Amino acid sequence: MDGIHLLGEWYGCPADTPAFTQAAPLRELCVNAARKAGLTVVGECFFQFEPQGVTGTVLLAESHIAIHTWPESSFVTVDVYVCNVTTDNTAKAEQVFREIEAALRPQRTHFQAIHRGAQHG
Amino acid sequence: MDGIHLLGEWYGCPADTPAFTQAAPLRELCVNAARKAGLTVVGECFFQFEPQGVTGTVLLAESHIAIHTWPESSFVTVDVYVCNVTTDNTAKAEQVFREIEAALRPQRTHFQAIHRGAQHG
Repeated sequence: MDGIHLLGEWYGCPADTPAFTQAAPLRELCVNAARKAGLTVVGECFFQFEPQGVTGTVLLAESHIAIHTWPESSFVTVDVYVCNVTTDNTAKAEQVFREIEAALRPQRTHFQAIHRGAQHG
Repeated sequence: MDGIHLLGEWYGCPADTPAFTQAAPLRELCVNAARKAGLTVVGECFFQFEPQGVTGTVLLAESHIAIHTWPESSFVTVDVYVCNVTTDNTAKAEQVFREIEAALRPQRTHFQAIHRGAQHG
């Protein structure tokens, strides 16, 4: 099952972004980004840390989005993983990734794209 | 935020394992493996595909587990990602990964471990 997994580490995210510190706006950001890109949301789960910080995932028919925010360190990690069962979803995954990144506005990023499945299948 | 992300692709998983095809036993397997390893479950979400196949995540205080099964291809992908905020959780992540792998019994595997965060922080 060929797929692409985008991994980001984002540094220097400003603290005044609601989606960076609170579960409800981060959920909305991720779910909307997925739908806007044409991916199919089949579930989601977001957990609010106190006093701030969020861990969350959006389940997709195509695989998943996972995101963890650490406002005390101005840091975020994000995963967008899609499989290409009937069509190549790589562009959709990149669109989701870039939309969440644009909302959280990191000053510095580290990015990897990993191909999964097909080349070893 | 230093962390370790374990990524697996598992081929040739036998079809007669309930956790391979059905959401409820896969949820139980993943949640129990996390708790047994001493990780802290803060949420979970599993989706059943029809007639078979599951996509699911377990949210951890330490980050997440994500798993996708494709019984029609005898294939699974799994992610176990933990951050090391106050202690090194690498051994716990490996324990969870190996326990799920042992339950799903792939004939062939592809494995990667990715360090995230610290070296770029």
